[in-house]
Parts: sequence; C-alpha cells; structure tokens
Amino acid sequence: MAERLRILGIDPGSRLTGFGVVDCRGDVQGYVASGSVQSIGGTFPDRLRRIFQSVGEIMAEYRPDVVVVESVFMHRNASSALKLGQARSAAICATFGYDVEIHEYAPREIKQAIVGTGAATKDQVNHMVCRLLKLDGQPSSDAADALAAALCHANRRRVQRALGTAAIVAALK
Amino acid sequence: MAERLRILGIDPGSRLTGFGVVDCRGDVQGYVASGSVQSIGGTFPDRLRRIFQSVGEIMAEYRPDVVVVESVFMHRNASSALKLGQARSAAICATFGYDVEIHEYAPREIKQAIVGTGAATKDQVNHMVCRLLKLDGQPSSDAADALAAALCHANRRRVQRALGTAAIVAALK
Repeated sequence: MAERLRILGIDPGSRLTGFGVVDCRGDVQGYVASGSVQSIGGTFPDRLRRIFQSVGEIMAEYRPDVVVVESVFMHRNASSALKLGQARSAAICATFGYDVEIHEYAPREIKQAIVGTGAATKDQVNHMVCRLLKLDGQPSSDAADALAAALCHANRRRVQRALGTAAIVAALK
Repeated sequence: MAERLRILGIDPGSRLTGFGVVDCRGDVQGYVASGSVQSIGGTFPDRLRRIFQSVGEIMAEYRPDVVVVESVFMHRNASSALKLGQARSAAICATFGYDVEIHEYAPREIKQAIVGTGAATKDQVNHMVCRLLKLDGQPSSDAADALAAALCHANRRRVQRALGTAAIVAALK
C-alpha cells in the first residue's frame, strides 16, 4: 500500500481562517477534516493569538506532513493587505514547532489545478472540492479554499511523480 | 526601591527587525540591550521563521514584562504592507509563549513621546534615544526605533502614574 501523505491546507484571513486536511495514498486522495477558525473581536494581537493557537491545535491533532498556504502577491488595499499578512503569518508561525514542509501556491494555480481554469469562481472551486473528495455536504467557503489548496499540492505531486516515472521510462528505452 | 518593569520594544520589518530592551524603576529608565535581526534570503516562510525564532530567543534571554510594537494603520504600497504585516505578526507570535502584555503605539505617538513632535525625523529619534538612555554609541536605525517604542511606553506609564497620584491628591483635598 502506498505511503500516506497528510496535507493541511490553510486559507488565512483576519476574521476567518479556513483549514482542510487531506490524506494522499498514491493517486488517491481522501478527506480527513475541515473547518474554520474565527478571530473576531478583541485587540489585533488577541486575534493573531487566536489564529496562532487554533492552527497550533490543528497541527497537534492532525500532524500533517505538509502545510499548504495560498500565496498573496497583489492586493488592492494596503490596509487589508496588512491585516491579511498578519493573519497569514500567525497561521504559518503556528506550524514552526513541527517538522513540516511549507508550500505556497498562487490563487490562480490552485483554481487551475482544481477547476481547470485560473479564473474559476468560488462556487466552482467549492463544487469541484466536493466532487474530488466525495463530500456529502458543502464545506464553508474558507474550508473549501483550504481543501482546494491541499488538493492543488496533491495534484502537483502526482504530476511530478508521473513526470519522474516518464523520465525513468524514457531513460530505459 | 521601585519595582523593575522590563520593556521590550520591537520594530518589525521583512528584512530587518529591530529590538530594544529598557528597564524602568520608578521614573528612571535604563538601557539593557538592543540590536537587530536579519531575515534576508530563502523563501518567505523561511524569513518569517527566522524572525519568529530570533524574537523567541530575545524573549527567553531578557524575559520582558511588556512588549511594545509600533502599530501600522496606513501604508502606501499594498505589496510591502503584506510583507510588513507578516514580519510584524511573526514577531508578535513569538511572544505568545510568555506571560506578557502587548502594547501598540502609532509611529506619531512614539515620535511625540521621544522628540516632542509627531513629525520628528529618524535622526532626531535616534539622537533623543541616545540622550534619554545615556548611550555612548549610536544604535542602528531599527534598534533605535525599537528603543523609542519601549521608551514611549515607559513615558505613557509615568504620565498615567502621575495622573493617578494627582487624582488621589485631588480626592483627598
């Protein structure tokens, strides 16, 4: 049986941080858990503390091998970029106590991997996450984005493995 | 002898994070340490890890009672606001393992407290930090900003204590 790789996807936000845990065995992906962490109210350091502690608890409970976070290069508004950056960093810092790889993918890459187009809507992403993971109910928008990030990494890994195998086959010919 | 209050000021940046430790006993402030942490090179999560770990080491070494960080409300550029937000959050998250109060002051408040005008230049802040703490050499710009943040809190605390005493005297009259 193929070795299990557990991926934690995180969709950080200053008010809601989505998370999604996916297990990969070979080319098969299975849903483990998802949800979102609220960080509303209190001072801004209090809100960062809530994200940091909650992601720390998720790390301790699910012990992922890989953490995937959406990268953010561009943002229209400097003030919300500052808040998002802080929330994102609190989630990333919460993983530093664990021996995990951290991968970043741009939103367009994630949509491309899940829906097939970088311009996909949130509904399309949510729909495809449900189909790929055979979910009965729809996860929240943040949880779906986190699961999509995890699935994007699983997909990237599958493609790289296939390319690796193809290269070996080509070398043997 | 008045009880000692140790204040750690932090001036976060995505490349250089300044720190400054000041001890207050009554109305007297004394320099303890200052410096800056480099976080250049590697992936952005690697840089955040360096800030998080270095500020964690500073916390463990100096065991401050209070941490002071410059607040940032406005930023011209969304991309650098995102980077600064992440660096700032990594520094703040590194303090969560310790029982400390976190205070935030706007840059204008800090300059006002140290130089007497919210429009003070970096050189003026550096000069006043050296005078107030009786330093022989000039600290780096980031370290001076961090010391200024710590001194701003010391000043605010002194004013509040004086107002408290004045209120008690007024009540007794």
